[in-house]
Amino acid sequence: MSYEISMIGSGNVAWHLAMTLDNAGYPVKEVYSRNFRNAEALVDRLYGAEPKSDLDFSNSPSQLFIISVSDDAIKEIVREIILPEEAILVHTSGTKPLNAMEFAATKHVGVFYPLQTFSKSRRIEFSEVPLCLEAADGYTKRVLKEIANNISKHVAMIDSANRAILHIAAVFACNFTNHLFKIAEDILDEHKLKFDLLKPLIVETVNKSLEMGASISQTGPAVRQDFEVLDKHMEKLEYNEEYAEIYRLLSQNIIDTYGESEE
Amino acid sequence: MSYEISMIGSGNVAWHLAMTLDNAGYPVKEVYSRNFRNAEALVDRLYGAEPKSDLDFSNSPSQLFIISVSDDAIKEIVREIILPEEAILVHTSGTKPLNAMEFAATKHVGVFYPLQTFSKSRRIEFSEVPLCLEAADGYTKRVLKEIANNISKHVAMIDSANRAILHIAAVFACNFTNHLFKIAEDILDEHKLKFDLLKPLIVETVNKSLEMGASISQTGPAVRQDFEVLDKHMEKLEYNEEYAEIYRLLSQNIIDTYGESEE
Repeated sequence: MSYEISMIGSGNVAWHLAMTLDNAGYPVKEVYSRNFRNAEALVDRLYGAEPKSDLDFSNSPSQLFIISVSDDAIKEIVREIILPEEAILVHTSGTKPLNAMEFAATKHVGVFYPLQTFSKSRRIEFSEVPLCLEAADGYTKRVLKEIANNISKHVAMIDSANRAILHIAAVFACNFTNHLFKIAEDILDEHKLKFDLLKPLIVETVNKSLEMGASISQTGPAVRQDFEVLDKHMEKLEYNEEYAEIYRLLSQNIIDTYGESEE
Repeated sequence: MSYEISMIGSGNVAWHLAMTLDNAGYPVKEVYSRNFRNAEALVDRLYGAEPKSDLDFSNSPSQLFIISVSDDAIKEIVREIILPEEAILVHTSGTKPLNAMEFAATKHVGVFYPLQTFSKSRRIEFSEVPLCLEAADGYTKRVLKEIANNISKHVAMIDSANRAILHIAAVFACNFTNHLFKIAEDILDEHKLKFDLLKPLIVETVNKSLEMGASISQTGPAVRQDFEVLDKHMEKLEYNEEYAEIYRLLSQNIIDTYGESEE
């Protein structure tokens, strides 16, 4: 069955999610943004939505209201939003628990969290994006699952506690990984070497790790317990205390992880 | 002009490099391995090579001798190998300096380092592999460059000091990245969550970072200076001191890297 949708927010997640839903036969009827222009910009990409700059949805035709704003703004919107009867209200945050909506004007609350990083300028194959759902009641759960299954191949019910764990894991695997690239770039810059040289190795390392598993793919001086190379590297990193400490700590953790199983 | 080649070693790098050279019109004539069977296995994949288990190459038809063995074994091979006159001798190590070959029986020594991770079971598009060259004399440099340019689009002269820097950067961008995936997997395992859920996010994060640059791509609680989330994550990581410390240190470094430019 079809549901009409109102999108509260016009950032990167709202942008991709609204277009995906609109194209999948879940018409987005309204887009709210504090900044009316941003609402209009997203409305321009949709079939029949109206821009809105107030949170009074009492006359809305929609059944599902998706709050897709920065984490800090969720609480205030939940408090201020006026909803039609039996409305379902969800947020799309990976970090905020379900009870961030405890003071909502509806009992049909949930979470609709797409586990992906979005930019307006980058196309994402939405059907490959894992959707992590949570719902306060059976009706909400049924509706969210139905919609989610129509736009993604990877739908999972994940409660707030597990979503927090997922977020921590994502910080390690994604935020920190990106920062390691930054450190590598910085070290190379320091010596007028180009980061481009490393890119083929990075791509192959990541592909290999995801296909074969991280444990079997681990290489480098730490897993080999090549203390001569480790010492030389630490020495060369003395100019930046934090880099040296990151190097030391990650190498130590690799040694601790694999050390006992070897010899 | 063509050169005949003898490969000393039959590991992952030797395997890919020998086949690439053989196919590019640089016939591999001999393959040495301490273990004769390993030499035979590689010879089977080449057009006209002979397996060898001794290091006497005095009657070799080759002009270029490539030592592609584990770092620790290089020195001994350099000391033991018997070469024809005017032979060029190179190693393929990212970590060992040119002077690892100071006692070689030839003055034509160099480094022929393919900056990539190789497995026998994975196909690599060799023309995309950066080749880092170093040479002790002009003749060696000319020959290595000519051969390198015929098998790769990315050839750079990199001296031993810069190759060491490149290696440190690769440890951060590749070895440590792989280990962060392992940590993420481990955290998810602990809560019976599947690492597969994170894979689309990892792929997009890495692609985005390599295409748009790491600085502009940095996301997450640390760069947002979201101390509420950082504290919560640290608390959840208390069960593993090293993970907690890695989280703290990398988050701190992200804050220090981006903090001053914001507000």
